[in-house]
Amino acid sequence: MVKVAILGFGTVGSGVYEIIKTNTTGLKRKSGSDIEIKYILDIREFDDHPEKHLFTKNYDDILNDEEVKVVIEVMGGLHPAYEFSKAALSAGKHVVTSNKELVATYGTELLNIAKEKGVNYLFEASVAGGIPILRPINQCLAANDIEKVYGILNGTTNFILTKMFKEGADFADALSEAQALGYAERNPEADVEGHDARRKIAILASLASGIFVDYNDVPTEGITKITKNDVAFAAKMNSVIKLVGYAELTGGTVYARVAPMVIPCAHQMSDVSDVFNAVVIHGNFVDDLMFYGRGAGKLPTASAVVADVVDAVKHIERRIRLMWKMPEGNIMVDPTKVPTQYMVRTTNKALVESFAGASVIGELDGEFAFVTCEMTETELFAKLGENDSFIRLLPKA
Amino acid sequence: MVKVAILGFGTVGSGVYEIIKTNTTGLKRKSGSDIEIKYILDIREFDDHPEKHLFTKNYDDILNDEEVKVVIEVMGGLHPAYEFSKAALSAGKHVVTSNKELVATYGTELLNIAKEKGVNYLFEASVAGGIPILRPINQCLAANDIEKVYGILNGTTNFILTKMFKEGADFADALSEAQALGYAERNPEADVEGHDARRKIAILASLASGIFVDYNDVPTEGITKITKNDVAFAAKMNSVIKLVGYAELTGGTVYARVAPMVIPCAHQMSDVSDVFNAVVIHGNFVDDLMFYGRGAGKLPTASAVVADVVDAVKHIERRIRLMWKMPEGNIMVDPTKVPTQYMVRTTNKALVESFAGASVIGELDGEFAFVTCEMTETELFAKLGENDSFIRLLPKA
Repeated sequence: MVKVAILGFGTVGSGVYEIIKTNTTGLKRKSGSDIEIKYILDIREFDDHPEKHLFTKNYDDILNDEEVKVVIEVMGGLHPAYEFSKAALSAGKHVVTSNKELVATYGTELLNIAKEKGVNYLFEASVAGGIPILRPINQCLAANDIEKVYGILNGTTNFILTKMFKEGADFADALSEAQALGYAERNPEADVEGHDARRKIAILASLASGIFVDYNDVPTEGITKITKNDVAFAAKMNSVIKLVGYAELTGGTVYARVAPMVIPCAHQMSDVSDVFNAVVIHGNFVDDLMFYGRGAGKLPTASAVVADVVDAVKHIERRIRLMWKMPEGNIMVDPTKVPTQYMVRTTNKALVESFAGASVIGELDGEFAFVTCEMTETELFAKLGENDSFIRLLPKA
Repeated sequence: MVKVAILGFGTVGSGVYEIIKTNTTGLKRKSGSDIEIKYILDIREFDDHPEKHLFTKNYDDILNDEEVKVVIEVMGGLHPAYEFSKAALSAGKHVVTSNKELVATYGTELLNIAKEKGVNYLFEASVAGGIPILRPINQCLAANDIEKVYGILNGTTNFILTKMFKEGADFADALSEAQALGYAERNPEADVEGHDARRKIAILASLASGIFVDYNDVPTEGITKITKNDVAFAAKMNSVIKLVGYAELTGGTVYARVAPMVIPCAHQMSDVSDVFNAVVIHGNFVDDLMFYGRGAGKLPTASAVVADVVDAVKHIERRIRLMWKMPEGNIMVDPTKVPTQYMVRTTNKALVESFAGASVIGELDGEFAFVTCEMTETELFAKLGENDSFIRLLPKA
């Protein structure tokens, strides 16, 4: 029998509760132990809950209870999730989390404390919701050096872009629909400006390279400026536009970026629609793999949390090798110096003449679009005028 | 330092050798130990090999050497792979394999011996080559009851069907090209008749359900009878035809089948082309996940083998919970009683009248096609004449 505590009884926390209560037999078979929820921490009242005796508002009840071996932090936000996680690990308890903000910010410190104390800090649910991706990187692909990891890491923006492509909606209308359906927050900035994807690609890159990648070092562009014409021009190229978190790991350096990118329809990722996520991993031996599924939502996310709980229970006296180090010196490649291709949209048709080797896409409502050869951002910006816009192409395999 | 032996220096075996020699540092970081190849067993001569001193033709050298902790069986075939694996496990050595035939046939016995002896029998590479799929089923999806697992499990047939769809080739021409490219054997029966996919779906279903599924109980149809018109009619339905290994797991029973199936283009799996594989898993909490990548080939397969070696090394004193039981009584659903939809092709246009609610697809070169409502195989066969043919539709989500 292993006793656990859930911190935060919101969407994910109540999903975790539901799964542990529903799949009791399966969880016992897979983990080797009964898993019992001893506490649920939440500042709100849950007097109508059938197990209201489990609820507490005092974290010390959990921290000081030696019976609690695994703490499930699904509160979100940096504080007090950071303090609570640190205290639990320091007290020799395993911690499982879905909190990408916390992992991307304090992950190195928390992993180090876990290592010192001989316990596990697990965070599969922090990236790509229900899709198992951190464990495959860490374990299943152990034979490979991972050279690239990238993907569609944010369901909200993917829903919006899918609407724009399939229904010709403009950004504002697609966003409103996402909000009406509960896929986007009233303040959608974290999603549409790419901040959410930025934290996730930083975690993926850290785990794949074994070296901490600070999300603050990942240049990030959102999708708010994408127009109907961008969509139409991309379609003329037999391509779609997706918000991509992208990282290349070579020779101890990392090139990372979050940006909308033009992806050819022949690419497996181009069909990932609506709120679905997908992560592509390129290993030096296995070539390309793609993992596809629901990147968010109560039960998919809780399902990833509970898989980590099972792993913590299986390894209750033992550590899972999951770690990254702080970098020695700067490992980040200067993103302004990485050449790539761009789809340029302009009202100034003559602009194309200054791009040697560019291929023209066409004309639409007084706008004109073309694809450049590979060039750096600096070279591109030197040629673009104020009213010209661009979208990067997904780097070639 | 952990010493290992490779049984069989064919395509996969030499790939395993190459990976262990190339990714030395990464493998040490991930497994916690140096991994040294002490023996390679092969009946052929390798006098020109730079490490020819590693080669032996006598399995007893390996079996009796207590330093060898992990045996990597990549010989293929049932015998002597079965005897060698059994002897290694009985001697307390971990065994890692890519041998689907062996796992599908003697897996239960070998898993039981491994359990008794406190060692691991690992076989990630036996299904879907480089795609991590067994470990995700076993571990990452621990929170879920897996209700369905299905996929494109054979690269050769997928290459042939992709040719037929994209280039209008007929089966014989596409097969010849696959043979010329080395994707298909001179005797292609194991692939094109579905036997290979049959063993893989049996392994997937066994692991997902926790109960042994005998591949002999999986009704299997190949792709040899698929015509250009089938392809054209499917295309008119905005669908493709893929060879699918399919299993539904409900309430302790298993419905399994290998057959070509009509898959709508909106389905994520419809775009899996050429020699690529994909596996879809439906969990009760996580919904649909898809894993995509190279299902065969020297380095992708060897990469999965080496990931298992790393796992065995990490768990050298400990067992990974990976197991299925023999069924108590018959767990297989009678496949003739499971209703599904069919695409029927006939020269007898009047046939459609005996199928209430059928939707007509169209007419082509004197042939006529329609889609039936859901019905059992028995009901279908009662209505079809000698010259009528059918392809199943992928069961709906």
